[in-house]
Amino acid sequence: MSKIFVDACLGKDTPYTPVWMMRQAGRYLPQYMAVRSEVGSFLNLCHNPAKAAEVTLQPLDIVGVDAAILFSDILVVPNEMGMELSFIKGEGPKFSHPISTLEDLEGLLGGEEAATRLTYVYETIAILRQQLDARGDNKALIGFTGSPWTLATYMIEGEGTKTYNICKKMLYAQPDLLHKILRKVTDVVKLYMEKQIEAGVDVVQIFDSWAAAIEPSRYDEFSWQYMVEIAHYLKAKYPHIPIIMFPKGVAAFIERGLVYGDFDVFGVDWGTPMALAKEKLGDRYVLQGNMEPCRLYSQEATTQCVEALQTIMGGKRHIFNLGHGILPDVPLENAIHFVNECHRVSGK
Amino acid sequence: MSKIFVDACLGKDTPYTPVWMMRQAGRYLPQYMAVRSEVGSFLNLCHNPAKAAEVTLQPLDIVGVDAAILFSDILVVPNEMGMELSFIKGEGPKFSHPISTLEDLEGLLGGEEAATRLTYVYETIAILRQQLDARGDNKALIGFTGSPWTLATYMIEGEGTKTYNICKKMLYAQPDLLHKILRKVTDVVKLYMEKQIEAGVDVVQIFDSWAAAIEPSRYDEFSWQYMVEIAHYLKAKYPHIPIIMFPKGVAAFIERGLVYGDFDVFGVDWGTPMALAKEKLGDRYVLQGNMEPCRLYSQEATTQCVEALQTIMGGKRHIFNLGHGILPDVPLENAIHFVNECHRVSGK
Repeated sequence: MSKIFVDACLGKDTPYTPVWMMRQAGRYLPQYMAVRSEVGSFLNLCHNPAKAAEVTLQPLDIVGVDAAILFSDILVVPNEMGMELSFIKGEGPKFSHPISTLEDLEGLLGGEEAATRLTYVYETIAILRQQLDARGDNKALIGFTGSPWTLATYMIEGEGTKTYNICKKMLYAQPDLLHKILRKVTDVVKLYMEKQIEAGVDVVQIFDSWAAAIEPSRYDEFSWQYMVEIAHYLKAKYPHIPIIMFPKGVAAFIERGLVYGDFDVFGVDWGTPMALAKEKLGDRYVLQGNMEPCRLYSQEATTQCVEALQTIMGGKRHIFNLGHGILPDVPLENAIHFVNECHRVSGK
Repeated sequence: MSKIFVDACLGKDTPYTPVWMMRQAGRYLPQYMAVRSEVGSFLNLCHNPAKAAEVTLQPLDIVGVDAAILFSDILVVPNEMGMELSFIKGEGPKFSHPISTLEDLEGLLGGEEAATRLTYVYETIAILRQQLDARGDNKALIGFTGSPWTLATYMIEGEGTKTYNICKKMLYAQPDLLHKILRKVTDVVKLYMEKQIEAGVDVVQIFDSWAAAIEPSRYDEFSWQYMVEIAHYLKAKYPHIPIIMFPKGVAAFIERGLVYGDFDVFGVDWGTPMALAKEKLGDRYVLQGNMEPCRLYSQEATTQCVEALQTIMGGKRHIFNLGHGILPDVPLENAIHFVNECHRVSGK
C-alpha cells in the first residue's frame, strides 16, 4: 500500500493533504521531555537508537501527523568528521575548535570515513523502518541533513551567530577556502543521505536553515548548487525516493526565478507568501508549508492560516507544514488542533 | 546652498550619488572607540550631547560620507517612557521589567511627557546643527527613531531575541494588547521626531530593524501602518523634511506590492535585490542601499557591488548605503574604499 505522504511528495493525487511539523519530536511534547530526562543530554538522545526511535514516533499517535522525521541533529555530521561538539544549556551547540584554515579542514575526516561513523543514525532508521512496517498504517519516515552551507556556518563560527561575520568574511575574502569546506561537507552528506536511504527512510529533506544569511545574488554559488548536487546524486541512484529542499528565508531568490534542480518538494518558509511560491514554483515542485509557527499560540490564528493555505493551494501538489520549527512553549493541544485542521479542510 | 544628500532624498538630480553607512559612527572607527573609552558605557555616550555630537561628525571627515546620522540608540524612547535599561557587555540591551500586561503599559509615560524627557537627544542635535552650519560644507544631518514594532519587541521581550516568541505570542493571542502598546509608542515617536526636526535635523529615518519577524500578510497591521502614520504626521507639518523608511527583510512585502505611504526614500536591505526594489518601488520612492555589509571585508567584493548598484540605478533616484549596519571588525580602510567607490562610479 502506498504511503499518502510519499504520494503527495511525488505530486500524485491523495485523498487528503498530509501534514507534519518541523521539529515535531521536540520540547513542546511532554512525552519527549520524559525521554530526554531519562537519557540526559540532547546528544545522548541522538546517540541512542532505541530512544531516538521512540521520540521519532511519538508525534504520529499524539499529534496525528502523516510522517515521522528521524530524531537527530544536523551537527552530527561535522561531529563525526572529527569536530568536538557540545550542547550548552541555554546557549545551543558549540564546536570547541572551529575551522579557520585549510589545515583545520584537512584535519577532518571526509567522505566514506566520516559517513560510516554515523552508525547510530542508521541504526535508529533501521529500528524505525521495522516499527513503522509493523504498525501497518503506512506513515512515512523522513530522513534529513543540514545543507553544506548551514553545516559550514557552524563549523566556521563554532556556534550559533547573529551576524555570521566570521563565515561571511571568509565568503568574501577567502571564497576558495569556503568552497573547499563546502566541497568536503557535500561529499560526506551525499554518502550520509545514501546510507539513510539504504537504512530505510522513505523521503529525505535537506535543511538550509541559514540560507537567508547569504545575499540572493550569491546564494546559488555558496549553497544552492551544493544542495542540488546532493539531490542529483540521490535522484540518479534512488529515483523513487522523494527529496524535499528547505532553504529558509529565500523569498527573493524564489522571486528572481533562481530556483532550479531535480528534486520533488520545495519547502516554503513562513516569510515567503505561499501565493508567491505557487506562482514561481508550483508547476515544477510540490510545495510544503508554510504556517508561521507562532500562529500555534492561537487556535483561531491557526485555523485562519490553514484555511488560507487550502484556498491558495486547493489541495493540489501541497503538503501542510509549518514554515519553520515548532517552538518549545506551544501548547500541545494547539499542535493537535493544527494537524486536525489541515486534515479537516483537505477532506480527511 | 542646498545639500546634495537632501536633494537626492527629494529625488532631485545631483552631481553625484551621495553615500552614508548605517552605524557609521561605530566600533570599526578607532576614533569612536577612543571617545567611548573616555565616557564609559554606551548609554553614557548617548546621554552626553557634546561627546555624542563629536562621534556623530567623525565619519564625515574620516570616511567621507555625505551625511551624518545622529549618534543615539533607538531604545532611549522606551527608556524615557520609564523602562529601566542597561547594556550588558556581549549581551546587548536589557530592560529589567518587560511589558506583559495592560497594567505594565499604563505604568509608562506617554506622549509629550515621554518625548520631552529626551532632552539630551535634542541638545545633541542643536550642537550638531551649529557645528555643521559652521563647517559650511553642506553635509546633511539625519535624525532617526526605531519603528513602533521594533521598539515594542524589545519592550515585550526585555532583550534581543532569536525567536520573538513572547511578542509573537502576543501578536496572535492578544493582538489588542499589542496594538495598545504600538499606539502608545507611536504617539511618543511622532513627537520625538517632531522635536528632532525642530532641533535641526535635515532628514529623518525610521528603522524597522525587526520587520522580518512578522509574516508578510500581517506586516502592515502590526508595523507598516504605524510607520506610515508617523510619516504622514511629519509630512503634514514639515513637507520639506525628507523621510526615509527602512524596514529590514521585507522582500516579500515589497514583491507583493504592499508598500504604500507618503514618504521620500525607501531603504532597501541587502536581502532584497535592488533590481526588485527598483521594479516595484523605484517610480514612487528614491531608493537607498543596499550593499551587503559583509562585502566590506573585501575591497574587491565592495567594488563589484558598488558597480553593480550603479548599473542598476544609473545614478538616478538613488542613495548609496549598506543594506544593514557596518560591523565592528571591518577594516577602516575598507569603509573608506566603499565611500570612495560610490563617489567614483557616480562621477564625483
